[in-house]
Amino acid sequence: MTEAAKTVKTNSRTAVTPTRAENFPEWYQNVIKAADLAENAPVRGCMTIRPYGYAVWENIQSHLDRMIKAEEVQNAYFPLMIPLSFIAREAEHIEGFAKECAVVTHHRLFKNDKGELVPDKDSALAEPLIIRPTSETIIGESMHNWVQSYRDLPLKLNQWCNIVRWEMRPRLFLRTAEFLWQEGHNVFATAEEADQDARRMLDVYTDFFENYLAIPAIQGAKTPDERFPGAIETYTIEAFMQDGKALQGCTSHNLGQTFAKSSDIKFLDRDGIQKLAWTTSWGLSTRTIGGLIMVHADDDGMVMPPKLAPYQVGILPIIHDDADRSKILEFCDKVQKDLAVKGVSAKTDKSDARTSDKMWTCIKKGVPVRLEIGAREIAEGQLTYTCRDLGKDGKKKVSLQEFMSTIEGVLSHMQKDMLEQAHQKAKGMVTEIKTLKEMRDFFAAEKIGGVKIDYKLIQGSDEFEAIKKEFSVTPRCLPFSDKGQKVIVAKAY
Amino acid sequence: MTEAAKTVKTNSRTAVTPTRAENFPEWYQNVIKAADLAENAPVRGCMTIRPYGYAVWENIQSHLDRMIKAEEVQNAYFPLMIPLSFIAREAEHIEGFAKECAVVTHHRLFKNDKGELVPDKDSALAEPLIIRPTSETIIGESMHNWVQSYRDLPLKLNQWCNIVRWEMRPRLFLRTAEFLWQEGHNVFATAEEADQDARRMLDVYTDFFENYLAIPAIQGAKTPDERFPGAIETYTIEAFMQDGKALQGCTSHNLGQTFAKSSDIKFLDRDGIQKLAWTTSWGLSTRTIGGLIMVHADDDGMVMPPKLAPYQVGILPIIHDDADRSKILEFCDKVQKDLAVKGVSAKTDKSDARTSDKMWTCIKKGVPVRLEIGAREIAEGQLTYTCRDLGKDGKKKVSLQEFMSTIEGVLSHMQKDMLEQAHQKAKGMVTEIKTLKEMRDFFAAEKIGGVKIDYKLIQGSDEFEAIKKEFSVTPRCLPFSDKGQKVIVAKAY
Repeated sequence: MTEAAKTVKTNSRTAVTPTRAENFPEWYQNVIKAADLAENAPVRGCMTIRPYGYAVWENIQSHLDRMIKAEEVQNAYFPLMIPLSFIAREAEHIEGFAKECAVVTHHRLFKNDKGELVPDKDSALAEPLIIRPTSETIIGESMHNWVQSYRDLPLKLNQWCNIVRWEMRPRLFLRTAEFLWQEGHNVFATAEEADQDARRMLDVYTDFFENYLAIPAIQGAKTPDERFPGAIETYTIEAFMQDGKALQGCTSHNLGQTFAKSSDIKFLDRDGIQKLAWTTSWGLSTRTIGGLIMVHADDDGMVMPPKLAPYQVGILPIIHDDADRSKILEFCDKVQKDLAVKGVSAKTDKSDARTSDKMWTCIKKGVPVRLEIGAREIAEGQLTYTCRDLGKDGKKKVSLQEFMSTIEGVLSHMQKDMLEQAHQKAKGMVTEIKTLKEMRDFFAAEKIGGVKIDYKLIQGSDEFEAIKKEFSVTPRCLPFSDKGQKVIVAKAY
Repeated sequence: MTEAAKTVKTNSRTAVTPTRAENFPEWYQNVIKAADLAENAPVRGCMTIRPYGYAVWENIQSHLDRMIKAEEVQNAYFPLMIPLSFIAREAEHIEGFAKECAVVTHHRLFKNDKGELVPDKDSALAEPLIIRPTSETIIGESMHNWVQSYRDLPLKLNQWCNIVRWEMRPRLFLRTAEFLWQEGHNVFATAEEADQDARRMLDVYTDFFENYLAIPAIQGAKTPDERFPGAIETYTIEAFMQDGKALQGCTSHNLGQTFAKSSDIKFLDRDGIQKLAWTTSWGLSTRTIGGLIMVHADDDGMVMPPKLAPYQVGILPIIHDDADRSKILEFCDKVQKDLAVKGVSAKTDKSDARTSDKMWTCIKKGVPVRLEIGAREIAEGQLTYTCRDLGKDGKKKVSLQEFMSTIEGVLSHMQKDMLEQAHQKAKGMVTEIKTLKEMRDFFAAEKIGGVKIDYKLIQGSDEFEAIKKEFSVTPRCLPFSDKGQKVIVAKAY
């Protein structure tokens, strides 16, 4: 047993305080800090994504981008700044975003009499520009130009970009004034194709949630009040966090002809008749990293699913005697290179920190596998590795050869296991109830999770509106598994 | 000979008009249009990067990102909106960017009495935010927080993002109000390391220019007037375009202690003394796609270097008889899949366009290799392929087996050949001269390219200032190859 491991055992303190049970929101912030994922930027509501956190986003991008391209979607890039008149074309849409947008009004600064820099009045824009809160309207303009005939359809576009929505109560990853996402925008000739596409992209997201993020996804439709402004259907993935609140993971919208009308997206069909097109949009953002934390992290910090981990193996050189240093580091380099050949990413901690600190850094960052290599390990030919998700039960002593031949299996097993563990945690998060009275009692008793109830019982119900207000709960979705007959109601991020 | 090829031969029209010789700037715009690379957006000075153009940027990103990471640089993400006070911290810097920035002043819209949407006065920001024209100041703030000790150095950061600079004379790719780039920002303990780093990153860019963009790069230092605002040295890659104008490809700055001072980036050194750090920054943008066009494209459109081509082989199914359609398309699919296994990207044109139109689409898009597959080709087992860079001389008839076993070599040969051709075109673009009189005569005679002259002759010279003004020329760089003794002067994009 290493010294550090002893420390854990003897005083059983956690690396992150407070614990999840003590104060979940504060625990969340502290996991982000302990794992060096992100921090509040010196710009109101914005975050700086630190290298370790950004590496997670790069992995999300690389896997999801491949899946999106497999759907024959093409990436492109559209302007950041959208003329106000474009946003204003669709009444419901502008209503939804007018209250939270960054408005560009000038294009030059000017030094005034007092020597202060101020926006130059002479550079005031005739028409203000809005920093994109989403891009339906500006992409709609391109669709209007690019779509002429049924031959141009379907047209499937996606962009990876930054978005600004002025958040009043920002929270790292979950709700920030600026965030990163991908937004897909597809155009079809028929209503059926558009709805199928919106559902199809939700399936792609579900696959990504379960097999990459290792987060069990509840697929469903949003109730009308919770739809994206302008959508005729919003499909969503809802997931339950460890504290029992729901998180809207990502959404896929059937926009019907709303934006085809406002952007005039028409095509000449096979029958020689000009028709209005049908569009969809679908997006997944840096918010998913918040979900990753709230589903997998524990009281010692982050736990990364291997497929998205910035590095999968953390190599910890144990140097008791300085004379061994170069031999040990050389050995570590060799292991790291051999792992790279297998497609396993590893990083050797070459800092002069103490071994226990190196170990705790790995734990807090949620590195899937820690591998200890010291003079004794090299002499004996036996290495010790520990799987992050299993705590101290995850420790094993094996030969180098065995480690090399089994590591891919260990990681893929951990990936599956984390989904299974998340399933276990999510189980029981949804309680089936039959009456609004039961709903009130459930939330009044501060029970963990949400409830599922006959959808008809909440429609137009004053009592439901009262419960929503009193307990800050919302309808999360009408799960597909219940064929739209039932609704899940819960507190949410 | 195909019908389309005959057309070329008989009337020798070009796919793009005007030709380079007739009107280079208009030819440039029309190549972009013919190849579907980008277009002007409905937002002043901004562009929409179309899927085919964005795929080039994705390839640039993927190769360059790998090279940047090999330099132990970590990617991260910093806010889009920078408080005015941050930008104002460094006098020279704000002077350089104040005239061309997008200023966010409000965070909400409001419907006035006339029913017009206007920025809501009650949402006016106490401090305006500037859309990043570059990120030294906001990243400097993070460096101030992250760098405490010599152990934290060097710190090497990079971000891929969008940038806004209000361009008065926008031009697709070359100068747009919004563009995409990567910006690297490194911190060091010593002046020497910072200067070495700025030069090192220029070497990385040079490698990228020559071996990916296939553009010969002239490495050098900018003259003081042409330096980045705040830099003590700006290193640059200059390249000559086919019309003889120079293009600043990308730059790498030794920022000395300018931003370390204004952002207070200090570290406790080994000797226990707190010291100011030294920083560098370096960037490459979507502008390089403009260079790619102006160096390689011809009067028939784009010519893509294979390493950056969205797809390297354009498969053209030749369907004379509808009965053959499915057989031919199946065969094309098989070829495309076999190529993918080799890591060669291909795309089959399954549209119902005429064969000659399909061929011209490939030519205009600059697809490196066109492969024709029809019923006869399948029956004979002989395929015809054409290399884009060689015109009609690039046509060859080979067996499928030979095509498959040689295609990788054909592409890598083409990549090298394009650099060699670009070298040939660039040769003679720089004329060595000895006096300012010769310089005046050179530009007055409207000769192609620029001149190289003893740097001492232009320093503080009124005659040089007059020449600059009269002929719109600028000092491009002091080439490293001349050890800073000489300067290249030319018109530039």
